[in-house]
Amino acid sequence: MIEKQKLKPISGFPEWLPEVRMVEQAWIDRIRGVFESYGFAPIETRSVEPVEVLLKQGDTDKEIYALRRLMEEEASASEADYALHYDLTVPMARYVAANLNDLTFPFKRYQIQRAWRGERPQEGRFREFTQCDIDVVDTRDIPLHFDAEMPAIVYEVMQALDVGPTVTRINNRKVLEGFYRALGVEQPHEVIRIVDKQDKIGPDGVSKMLTDELSLDGATIGKVLDLARVTGTKADVVERVRALGITGDLLEQGLDELHFVMKALESYPEGAFVADLSVARGLAYYTGTVYEVKFADDPSFPTICGGGRYENLVGSMLNKHLPGIGISIGLTRIFSKLVREGRIAPTRKTPTQVMVCYLPDASYEAVNGVARTLRARGIKTELFHEPRKLKQQLAYASNKGIPHVWFPAVGAEGKHEVKTLATGAQADADPESWLPEG
Amino acid sequence: MIEKQKLKPISGFPEWLPEVRMVEQAWIDRIRGVFESYGFAPIETRSVEPVEVLLKQGDTDKEIYALRRLMEEEASASEADYALHYDLTVPMARYVAANLNDLTFPFKRYQIQRAWRGERPQEGRFREFTQCDIDVVDTRDIPLHFDAEMPAIVYEVMQALDVGPTVTRINNRKVLEGFYRALGVEQPHEVIRIVDKQDKIGPDGVSKMLTDELSLDGATIGKVLDLARVTGTKADVVERVRALGITGDLLEQGLDELHFVMKALESYPEGAFVADLSVARGLAYYTGTVYEVKFADDPSFPTICGGGRYENLVGSMLNKHLPGIGISIGLTRIFSKLVREGRIAPTRKTPTQVMVCYLPDASYEAVNGVARTLRARGIKTELFHEPRKLKQQLAYASNKGIPHVWFPAVGAEGKHEVKTLATGAQADADPESWLPEG
Repeated sequence: MIEKQKLKPISGFPEWLPEVRMVEQAWIDRIRGVFESYGFAPIETRSVEPVEVLLKQGDTDKEIYALRRLMEEEASASEADYALHYDLTVPMARYVAANLNDLTFPFKRYQIQRAWRGERPQEGRFREFTQCDIDVVDTRDIPLHFDAEMPAIVYEVMQALDVGPTVTRINNRKVLEGFYRALGVEQPHEVIRIVDKQDKIGPDGVSKMLTDELSLDGATIGKVLDLARVTGTKADVVERVRALGITGDLLEQGLDELHFVMKALESYPEGAFVADLSVARGLAYYTGTVYEVKFADDPSFPTICGGGRYENLVGSMLNKHLPGIGISIGLTRIFSKLVREGRIAPTRKTPTQVMVCYLPDASYEAVNGVARTLRARGIKTELFHEPRKLKQQLAYASNKGIPHVWFPAVGAEGKHEVKTLATGAQADADPESWLPEG
Repeated sequence: MIEKQKLKPISGFPEWLPEVRMVEQAWIDRIRGVFESYGFAPIETRSVEPVEVLLKQGDTDKEIYALRRLMEEEASASEADYALHYDLTVPMARYVAANLNDLTFPFKRYQIQRAWRGERPQEGRFREFTQCDIDVVDTRDIPLHFDAEMPAIVYEVMQALDVGPTVTRINNRKVLEGFYRALGVEQPHEVIRIVDKQDKIGPDGVSKMLTDELSLDGATIGKVLDLARVTGTKADVVERVRALGITGDLLEQGLDELHFVMKALESYPEGAFVADLSVARGLAYYTGTVYEVKFADDPSFPTICGGGRYENLVGSMLNKHLPGIGISIGLTRIFSKLVREGRIAPTRKTPTQVMVCYLPDASYEAVNGVARTLRARGIKTELFHEPRKLKQQLAYASNKGIPHVWFPAVGAEGKHEVKTLATGAQADADPESWLPEG
């Protein structure tokens, strides 16, 4: 017997009952469907990467899980160097760098896979979670059309999953960096890192950090906060940035890009995509367009999708020019929220569409034959394998949410009958032609 | 830049190019389809279990990977106690024990998930691999019909995957234990452990180990080897065991069960299922029917599927009676063999069915409109996002194996045309009605 304690859930490692997993699985199928409809090809990467590869990239303040062989007395040097990946972007970048000569560019991949972080679990934060990513990597400059298409694909996914209204906040790192540089700031990435915290600590907190950590003067901080206040649902939002009176080549390039992306998304419902100049994204590797998606009706809930353009992440592994752009859907974060709020309402504990009863006066060969006939016709069919009382067999079907039960014909004169449990309706049926509802 | 070394494959952690992953993904979809057609519901378990849970079960001589938080100076007690699971059976047993009151029994689940073992990689053995498992667990005795249905489902999967001829070898632990006990052997499980090695070390090796390790006498070893020589494709194979002249209640019960299972499988092609009294399965937890599946044309290749009946694995976690039966498909082992042998012949690097060209004299809105129309009709449609030379766009489509390219109409008078790359055929097409081949 195992200690009861050992059977308990492990904080941050979610698991679902079968009826909930069936819904999550249906979500994943729909996400795959949307990704494939845009021509993204699936890959999976191994779950582990060399620690060096993980630490050299953006997210180095996140805790990661290294592997250790349990039975080995001394840590094997090679294995101690591997750790579970904390996202799917860095493994994808490594995969592209490793398979450069075998891939066709632009390389468009989707990846639906688990990732791990050794963080303290809290609302929306898990230690093991599933991400659904799309990325494009090319050996030459990637056209801006992709910057507009990526969030549109994710918007379509959110619609397909029916998760409620979302808002995709869009910004451009060139605008931020160009603006800060034009103000005379020498460490624009440090300002970006601090502005990224505005959602959590507010403008006053940002102001204090910019003073304390970067010793920026009041006028500069005022402009930084002015920029972070700019939002707009249309492409002309860039004029509000220009109205702040700061100019510079990088800033102008960023504003042109932001204008292009917002313009390309104008056909979507108003408010679905918002240019928000306070959006920074913490990761160091973004260089242009950045996105984050939130629940429109729960803005304090963490970001549910995020991404952006990274010119150097892949190429830095090889000293080549390999720009990329991608976006990641935090499936576990979204799904677990809806589960917690009771918005996932599973009705069935099994995919079975019809259960064939095995009654004491029937032959197993005959009832199994009915099941095989139905299955061969694509109907998900379960056989009750024991000739128990009918009441018990029906209770099983009902408890699992199986919609139909089949009573096989007995004897040469007998007729097959099917009962629909929801309505109680019962009728003659032919295994060669009957079709289930649902 | 990352050391070249760090970009290399890690031995035992396979990865596939997109075109190969597409085939593997299609395999998984087909496996899911077969499992669901028999009424198995999907679950996923977390990737980690308490070390104690993993070590108390059968496979304790396998190396396992424990987790270690990288940045923490001192190992956190709680986290050091977790390790990656090495199969899906033990996690399933823990899941059932933990969720006992929320599951409907008989609980029938499938699980397609990765597992990890810290073994030295060799042919067919990986450190990270995907298993596809089905199991039934009940709170009361499980009817023998399941013992026949489980290998039949796996046979159907192997047919669906077209992996070539396989043979499912079937035995029953009660036959082995009953036979050995009737011979006066006091440690029948030790004999089972040694007989399990016969595939690798041959009958002489088994004989030597039985002498050296268990001090069995020659006559007893002779009978043990006699039993291990019995095979047969029909239910009457049990008579050949009885002809060895050994009797006992447990042995008779096992022979009746083996007879039942072989009889129930007689409608399948001869040789697909073979009773083989040398099959032992190494795991301690099996108590009745055991299976292993091999490639019929490559018997020295390791077992590709394995499983059996375990009366006490789940219940032992709770001190309850919770018998189970299951079988596991070694997807990575099977798939990687076929890849290595060149029997996976991918033709496409993308799911895209048609690529819409973006020619310099077209408007992006118009070509994007065509793509959206096609996509809305369920056609996987990729848009070439840059108005590059037609030749370059066609080369991209051809390199990725995209079957069709679409030339959007230009101007009010223009007509849409579609070219099929394999044949070179080109024809007028309407985005509202055109259908791709393949």
